[in-house]
Amino acid sequence: MKATVLSDDDQKTYALIFDKGDEVVAELTAFAKAHAVGAAHFTAIGAFSGVTLGYFERERKAYTKIPMPEQVEVLSLVGDVAQQDGEPKIHAHVVVGKRDGTAHGGHLLDARVWPTLELILVESPRTLARRSDRESGLALIDLRRAA
Amino acid sequence: MKATVLSDDDQKTYALIFDKGDEVVAELTAFAKAHAVGAAHFTAIGAFSGVTLGYFERERKAYTKIPMPEQVEVLSLVGDVAQQDGEPKIHAHVVVGKRDGTAHGGHLLDARVWPTLELILVESPRTLARRSDRESGLALIDLRRAA
Amino acid sequence: MKATVLSDDDQKTYALIFDKGDEVVAELTAFAKAHAVGAAHFTAIGAFSGVTLGYFERERKAYTKIPMPEQVEVLSLVGDVAQQDGEPKIHAHVVVGKRDGTAHGGHLLDARVWPTLELILVESPRTLARRSDRESGLALIDLRRAA
Repeated sequence: MKATVLSDDDQKTYALIFDKGDEVVAELTAFAKAHAVGAAHFTAIGAFSGVTLGYFERERKAYTKIPMPEQVEVLSLVGDVAQQDGEPKIHAHVVVGKRDGTAHGGHLLDARVWPTLELILVESPRTLARRSDRESGLALIDLRRAA
Repeated sequence: MKATVLSDDDQKTYALIFDKGDEVVAELTAFAKAHAVGAAHFTAIGAFSGVTLGYFERERKAYTKIPMPEQVEVLSLVGDVAQQDGEPKIHAHVVVGKRDGTAHGGHLLDARVWPTLELILVESPRTLARRSDRESGLALIDLRRAA
Repeated sequence: MKATVLSDDDQKTYALIFDKGDEVVAELTAFAKAHAVGAAHFTAIGAFSGVTLGYFERERKAYTKIPMPEQVEVLSLVGDVAQQDGEPKIHAHVVVGKRDGTAHGGHLLDARVWPTLELILVESPRTLARRSDRESGLALIDLRRAA
């Protein structure tokens, strides 16, 4: 993955261009740690050679994995970055398109890029923080801690 | 729902974090009215415990309701705010993911959040206005009135 | 299609409102050429009276066309603008919703608007450039050329 600054204003806008074979969550997390991102949001399009989607089961308080080991168009990848336990954490949901034009999607667990992923990330000058939520078992953004 | 300002520049960027049980259209409309939003756009991800989608029927000039009374991932929620009859009006389309990974979506009629919805809203210093369009029966953004 | 400036800061934000019958790729390309856009990204919602989706076949190094000659909701249209052979080129992926609420999508080849498409475009003060990639046969954004 390579990055370039598109705008350096109160918010900083980056274009992140992923290469063939890049794993998205790992690369994006590494970028966020290297730049000490406190809060950011992003959108992307491109294509994957494979992806693992997640669907959150309320009863189990856990994600069911939905593996899609095939070439798919990335129709939208939307997500954010917030602090969790002192480190930036990626939260992203994805919609992918198959050969027959049907759309599928879920929580992004992992994905392999081929041939590209074009991601626009807007870094905020503020910090957002996640806190563990007992009822759901998930770490949710808590604005009482962001103030 | 709680809100925080991420950036206060020529445009103002907010993070809106919805709570369990919040109805999205009502909360977002209330926020837009309270802040007298003239024009804004937003994206969000999260999950719903239920949602009603709409599909616009050209012949009937009305939305067919597609109820989905189940837990779904919010894969993307994209929309905007513009003035209609002197008040801010929300227009949003949503893509949701079911347990089997299939994606569904439509015009957002109403939705119940569980456990969270993370929404980034960018408020513009300008105003956009909707005007009733006779042919479709819909209120469309009219840039002749925005100038 | 009509355009208005929502914000004119380091980045410039436009609202582009498409009219009934507009072909999206042609209108957006004409706008980008007229404004000499070096780099931009956008999101949109609305509806189409018909759209042709593309799925990239790795073996053939070509897009398979998936025609959808019917009224669909545009659930998300996400894309970017970059320079290719000295001219701005649109790259966009779309998710559409059918009457039964199922979602479909792919690379946007062409689409006819009805009754509207509401698109927010953020123009960067920088330039991004595409370069032909031998392995995939596609023109990918190359940040080595953007510096």
